[in-house]
Parts: sequence; structure tokens; C-alpha cells
Amino acid sequence: MAAGNVKLLGVWASPFVNRVEIALKIRSIESEFIQENLLNKSELLLKSNPVYKKIPVLFHDEKPICESLVILQYIDEVWPNGPSILHSDPYDRAISRFWAAYIDEKWFPLVTELRNAEGKEAKTAVLEKIYEGNLLLEEAFIKISKGKPFFGGDSIGYLDVVIGSLLGWVKAQEIMDEVKILDETKMPSLAEWDDRFCSDEIVKDIIPQPEKLVEVYRKYQESFYKK
Amino acid sequence: MAAGNVKLLGVWASPFVNRVEIALKIRSIESEFIQENLLNKSELLLKSNPVYKKIPVLFHDEKPICESLVILQYIDEVWPNGPSILHSDPYDRAISRFWAAYIDEKWFPLVTELRNAEGKEAKTAVLEKIYEGNLLLEEAFIKISKGKPFFGGDSIGYLDVVIGSLLGWVKAQEIMDEVKILDETKMPSLAEWDDRFCSDEIVKDIIPQPEKLVEVYRKYQESFYKK
Repeated sequence: MAAGNVKLLGVWASPFVNRVEIALKIRSIESEFIQENLLNKSELLLKSNPVYKKIPVLFHDEKPICESLVILQYIDEVWPNGPSILHSDPYDRAISRFWAAYIDEKWFPLVTELRNAEGKEAKTAVLEKIYEGNLLLEEAFIKISKGKPFFGGDSIGYLDVVIGSLLGWVKAQEIMDEVKILDETKMPSLAEWDDRFCSDEIVKDIIPQPEKLVEVYRKYQESFYKK
Repeated sequence: MAAGNVKLLGVWASPFVNRVEIALKIRSIESEFIQENLLNKSELLLKSNPVYKKIPVLFHDEKPICESLVILQYIDEVWPNGPSILHSDPYDRAISRFWAAYIDEKWFPLVTELRNAEGKEAKTAVLEKIYEGNLLLEEAFIKISKGKPFFGGDSIGYLDVVIGSLLGWVKAQEIMDEVKILDETKMPSLAEWDDRFCSDEIVKDIIPQPEKLVEVYRKYQESFYKK
């Protein structure tokens, strides 16, 4: 649709950038992708997100919007036509916002903690905390989806995008640590949702393959040691 | 207005509870205040916010909503009449959401860090970080308010409520540490806004007096040492 001038500053391997890509695709908004260099941040990034200096940044008619959760809600509000991303009911919206914040502030940081934990004991301790979170998310999925395939109901919505965008990195971490983070015996509904989400037409070309992310991560690490 | 059955679980001294009280007052929603005991949390709190076990919890027709930023947006969306809390323009809303998250995730935690810092050197280091944040907020106020008295324009809006609710505790910390956090020489526009906000009819009976909060804090501390 005619959406004005839309540009997205990011890298393909960032789950937070992937969120914005998925949301733009749900709303059929055409955009230009501007490649960021995270090892030598661009003037454009530093100028448009001086507080955090982080991707993604969405530019709409040259005006920058930062922080993926803020951008998702902006996309939902600024182009009123097309499938909505947040629920229409205020209570469902509140519940989705609650869990989105939980994911970004509590759950996903545990995956990073797992990556950095040293030794088997430390890793097991972090995994236990992740499993507690998984149980909460499994319950939340059952409550919010109300028997439908997605958090958003019949199609992908806000919370699907927020959690689903992280799946590539979660699975990459499973490979690197040889552990099971998304254990289907403990979270059967969410495991089925995971399969459904990742094979959905809207997202399947956006969420990177875990093997590719493992490669990216190892190269990124190397770049700190190479002269 | 007829708003259904509305109850707020909290304590009067919590800035996050104060946010909700202000928002309900802006929208003229009558509610019942349920006193929580933070030293011996109620079954109601544990049941209605099992993830964080924190106040505030708003109950609307018995359905619980947690996390103050989520509740503010819920209040704005569920009762469509009355003055709005968030801006109507999607870009202004995005900018407000960005700064609200910054306040809760970065700026206000520094005030807690200041409280816990031991020794003059450590306190000065934290104060420097707070001053950097203040400069960002001063700039943000000038940009967002566009020459009007509040972040929300002519009247108190989302970001006014989010930041303004913290002023009592910020000033209590100034008394306890004998420092200036809100330095008007470094943030003249925000200092004027502070005076305007705290004397506004909507909020003046809700934001607690700093001296009273100092007293509360000291009593709370004592309770950990008393048998």
C-alpha cells in the first residue's frame, strides 16, 4: 500500500530487526532495507538512536522510530488498513503487552545468560530458570490463543512476532550448547505453535536458519580476536 | 463515568500505583483502593500477579491487569470517553512509549542505584549518570511538548504521568543523600515542568510529599532489623 517513504536500518540476523520485517510484511508495507555495520556503527544509527545506538530503526518519511516493541505498535497504528497486529480488545492488548515486556526483560536475557554461563553447573542453573519461564509461556499461550493457532488468534499477531522472532537464536543456542531449550515434553502447545509459526508464509523467509546464526555468531566472536 | 467494577491493589507510597491513580483521575473513573501489605503479600496479589508479585494490579470487572505502563495504556483504551492519556498521533505515541521505557529501564533505576551506592565517590559516579539522563530528558521535553506546558501538550498525558509519578521519591532521595538530582541549572525546562506538574489539580493530592516518603523509607528499613 502507499505508505510514504519507509526504510528499515538493521542487519538480517537481528531478531529485533526481524520483528519489524514481519510486521511490515503483515501490513504489506514496502520498505527499503539499509544495512547497518555493528562493528563500526553508522552516523545514521548514532544520530537516529543516540540513546541506545541500537538497531532496528524504522524511518517513516525520514522520522526515526526506535525499539522494536515501540515500532511494532507504531506500524499497527499508523497504517490503519490491513490485518491488525495487536488484538482489538483492550484487555487482550494489555495481556499481550505484559508478556511482550516479560519476554524482552526476563525470558530472552536468560538465553544470553546461558550463552555466557561457564561450566556445566552454571549452565544447568540458567536452564532451570528458562524452564520455569517456559511453563509460564505455555500457560500464557493456552490462555491467550483460546484454542486458536496463534497468540493473535487465527493469524500471527503481536506476541507471535515478539516471541517468534527469537526462535532462530534460541535454536542456535541449543546447537551451540547441545541442550534443549524449547523442550516439547514440558511445553507441548508452544512446541506446536513454534512449528506453525516458523512455517507460516509471512515469516518463513525472514526468521534465519539456526545453523546460519551459529556461523554468524562464531564469525562475530572471531572478529574480536583477529587483528 | 459508569466504568464497571474497578479496584486498584496497591500502597499509597508506590510511584507505580500513583501512576494508575492519576490515570483513573484523568479519566474520572471511580475505583476502590485495596491496601496491599508488602511485608506479607496478600493471596490476592500472589494470585493476580504470579509472575512479578508486584503492585499495582488493576481489576476491571474482576480481571487483573499488571505493570503500570500496561495499565495506563489499558485505561486509555478501554474507556474511550474523556481526555486521552496518550497522544492521538501515532508518531507522538511512539516517542512517548520510547521515553517511558527509558525512564523505567534506565533512568529511575539510577535513583535506586544512588540510594544503594556506598561512599561519596560511588554516589558521585551515579549522579553523573543521572545528570546525563537529565540532559536527554530536558531535550526530550522541549521536543515533545512543542512549547506547551506538558509532555502531553495542554494537559497531563502519558509521559507526564510516567515521569511525574516518580518525583516524590526522587526528591526524597535528594533529602536522604543531601544532593540535587533535579538540578534546575542543568534542566531548566524540566524544572519548570516539575513545579507545574506537582501543583496540578489532578495530581497534587496523589503524589506524596518527599518528607513523608523519607519517613516511610526509614520505617521500612527498620522493619528489617526489628524482631
